Amino acid sequence: MSEEFKDRERGQGPAAGSERTGAVEEERQDERVLDPGNLDAEHHALEIEFREYLDRGATEELRNLALELSPGDLSEVLRPLSVEDTTAVLKLLPPDDLAEVLSEIDNRSLSVLFALLDVDEIADLVEEMPSDDAADVIGELDEEQAAEVLAAMEEEERSEVAELLQYAPETAGGLMGKEYTTCTEEETVAEAAARLRALDVSDLEETHFVYVVDRRGRLTGRVPLIRLVISEPEVQVRDLMETDPLYVEVDLDQEEVASFAQRHDLISVPVVDHQMRLVGRITVDDVLDVMEEEATEDISRLAGVSVGEFGEQSAFRVARSRVPWLFGAMVAELGTATVLGHFEASLEARVTLVIYIPMIMAMAGNIGIQTSSVVVRGLATGEIDFYHVGRHLLREMGTAVLVGMAIALAIAGVSLLFSGDPSISLVLGLTMLLVVLFAATTGTGMPLLLHRLGADPAVATGPFITTANDMVSMAIYGGLATWMLKLGAVH
Amino acid sequence: MSEEFKDRERGQGPAAGSERTGAVEEERQDERVLDPGNLDAEHHALEIEFREYLDRGATEELRNLALELSPGDLSEVLRPLSVEDTTAVLKLLPPDDLAEVLSEIDNRSLSVLFALLDVDEIADLVEEMPSDDAADVIGELDEEQAAEVLAAMEEEERSEVAELLQYAPETAGGLMGKEYTTCTEEETVAEAAARLRALDVSDLEETHFVYVVDRRGRLTGRVPLIRLVISEPEVQVRDLMETDPLYVEVDLDQEEVASFAQRHDLISVPVVDHQMRLVGRITVDDVLDVMEEEATEDISRLAGVSVGEFGEQSAFRVARSRVPWLFGAMVAELGTATVLGHFEASLEARVTLVIYIPMIMAMAGNIGIQTSSVVVRGLATGEIDFYHVGRHLLREMGTAVLVGMAIALAIAGVSLLFSGDPSISLVLGLTMLLVVLFAATTGTGMPLLLHRLGADPAVATGPFITTANDMVSMAIYGGLATWMLKLGAVH
Repeated sequence: MSEEFKDRERGQGPAAGSERTGAVEEERQDERVLDPGNLDAEHHALEIEFREYLDRGATEELRNLALELSPGDLSEVLRPLSVEDTTAVLKLLPPDDLAEVLSEIDNRSLSVLFALLDVDEIADLVEEMPSDDAADVIGELDEEQAAEVLAAMEEEERSEVAELLQYAPETAGGLMGKEYTTCTEEETVAEAAARLRALDVSDLEETHFVYVVDRRGRLTGRVPLIRLVISEPEVQVRDLMETDPLYVEVDLDQEEVASFAQRHDLISVPVVDHQMRLVGRITVDDVLDVMEEEATEDISRLAGVSVGEFGEQSAFRVARSRVPWLFGAMVAELGTATVLGHFEASLEARVTLVIYIPMIMAMAGNIGIQTSSVVVRGLATGEIDFYHVGRHLLREMGTAVLVGMAIALAIAGVSLLFSGDPSISLVLGLTMLLVVLFAATTGTGMPLLLHRLGADPAVATGPFITTANDMVSMAIYGGLATWMLKLGAVH
Repeated sequence: MSEEFKDRERGQGPAAGSERTGAVEEERQDERVLDPGNLDAEHHALEIEFREYLDRGATEELRNLALELSPGDLSEVLRPLSVEDTTAVLKLLPPDDLAEVLSEIDNRSLSVLFALLDVDEIADLVEEMPSDDAADVIGELDEEQAAEVLAAMEEEERSEVAELLQYAPETAGGLMGKEYTTCTEEETVAEAAARLRALDVSDLEETHFVYVVDRRGRLTGRVPLIRLVISEPEVQVRDLMETDPLYVEVDLDQEEVASFAQRHDLISVPVVDHQMRLVGRITVDDVLDVMEEEATEDISRLAGVSVGEFGEQSAFRVARSRVPWLFGAMVAELGTATVLGHFEASLEARVTLVIYIPMIMAMAGNIGIQTSSVVVRGLATGEIDFYHVGRHLLREMGTAVLVGMAIALAIAGVSLLFSGDPSISLVLGLTMLLVVLFAATTGTGMPLLLHRLGADPAVATGPFITTANDMVSMAIYGGLATWMLKLGAVH
């Protein structure tokens, strides 16, 4: 990276630099251009610097440092700080910079910050934010405070935010913003450009298309800005617009919005109501956030933890969210205990059988996790869909037969070496074959079934499949051993 | 959705519609505008239609149907078809439409298709593709064929693709394309617009910025197109450009590129070499693909499956990729068997102890999966970083103490009701407390340790943690029971 480039800082003229003096300060300032290849270290160094200034109460330095960072970097650096420290830094920012950071800050810091401000100050801040972020922030307030803030906002912003608040947060309506420009087919390039000139400066950066609507406000096309740049001013929009723009309806689930944008490589998705009227547009940064959120949700459900515990710092709250789930699993495992209880006599007669119980359970568990994770992820990415469930089930059954035979042979051989008892090896091999087939069937079938029923396939995986596998595999093992014991094979 | 709008079809004038006749055909054609809220059904209906035309050998209908769909939709609809059927449809497309679909098609179909074409045809196709996709496609060919195709390409496209092929696929260089426009600070709006007019039509759609470079090609700024639209033609670029554009270096890992773009809400990321010279730009659709890929990779590793098995249809290949992993887990579980073997006498003396083995293992497994998934996902999203490992570990230890006590009390109480033997309940409660503490420590510590060592934290979770938990939890249970047996508490 060239030194020349490093010296310039985001949004800061030479004035900001001149407030500092000395070679050491100069050097440190250089390091503040964050290197994405070494981000952890960069954030950590900045965090230490923030803490030092906070300890000293060095207001001026805090403000300058915060202003040097992009909103995204600043929110990352502040994350490890306490809510009070975060608020102390944010309070120092001028309203327009603060508004940019607010949508990136966690909700607890936000509510502490808002508690320090009066309604008019909050309203001013929210007015500076993009309408979708403003609606998200106001949606987090309690009802009374939200109404007060809305009442204190200027008419234009209030009506936009009030409209957005009507949509469910996890739909296209909940993601979209009102910052878009429209024109009609009859207008010229010059007229469309004039409409763009009328935009607020803060809305300029995210504008990459002008949407074309008819007299009734219905979406009929879009014009990428490059076409306005390269066309003559008197050309009509109708002659350069793209017809049949891709769009989503306002009540589409956010997960489907994200996969729609991904499939069609869209950087901006127009949103229409049921009469095809343009009501908003979703920017791709929201699509990225949705994708990350949905992946976290899937992993969380597979693992049996709540999404809420990411970023949570209280061990008590985390424990409280995990314990009910674990209690459920424990109670369910009483079923497995009951099953094993039925075979107590066989186990007592032949206690060597016991030492293989963990191995059988581990294999059942592994197969269950493998098969169900593949289904859950396949459904999420569209790899598996409603109409090709049979094909996936078939592939998994084929796999299970092959895997089951391989594992059965291996475990029979290994156990023969290990305990030197062919009758136990026979029981183990047969058990393992059946266990693998059962675990693969439930691991594949259960999430697919839930998906067909319209439920989230990921919720099934942790608790249900594991318990079912444990119970059934112990029943198979105990049953086979007892049966062969009676036949005289094991005894 | 308005009927008026439905009637229009992507990239098709009335001519395409007029080749069909009859009311039924008209109706079916209407349905082909895909509704993202009902995508599975839409794709399935189209798949059936494709199959019908393929059976009949109805070439004209196949081509028209394929042309009516966007490249993203077409590739989704073709996915369930056989490689031969996919190729049969693709062969019917004109080169420019085919080029658009190629980057979305799976590699096996691609190689079958390429086997049907001669080198010149392939070269013509690849020339039509965006340079990053072209490099990906050529990178999939064997060395000899790649060299032939490159040699048959036109000079400009060849040099671009050859340059891109030098970068590692999973870096910024591997993601970037060469379709960008630059200007200098001294040029005017009119001159910048003239440069844009000189672009290929196919490169227009993804252009949203003009990048500003100095005489040595070093990146110094960017101009969003909207600023060109709203500024007077004689204004100099220097007066409207954004300085200090965010960029990444060419060898940055793709995962970091994705999180950089997400953190800063970028729709296009300029890529520079180590001398700060602009060498490419990454579009956000590649960022979306990377995010999906990385989430799939994490889930796969947590579950112990390979990424390659997504979309794989051969049960044999899937089984072959899963079996070594399962064998490893099986051999490791011999350790658990050995541990239990040491306590055979105690188990024989008191066989009721056996029936709780699955419950203990299940709880150890659940805690292990919960804690390690939270770490793996936290590291992936940046929630946890290198410098805040201690804080997360502390939170998890606090959680483990609380969860352990709750579970220990519950299991002691439940087992008392269940088997009515206070001495066993005491052993179980103590075992569970220790097991939860151990499982939480390894589940949290192991991925963090691997991350510190520079390894992928997700690989550790499945095999290693599960086995360690099983072995240690059985050692704790057997040890405690034997000790208390000797003390006379259990017997």
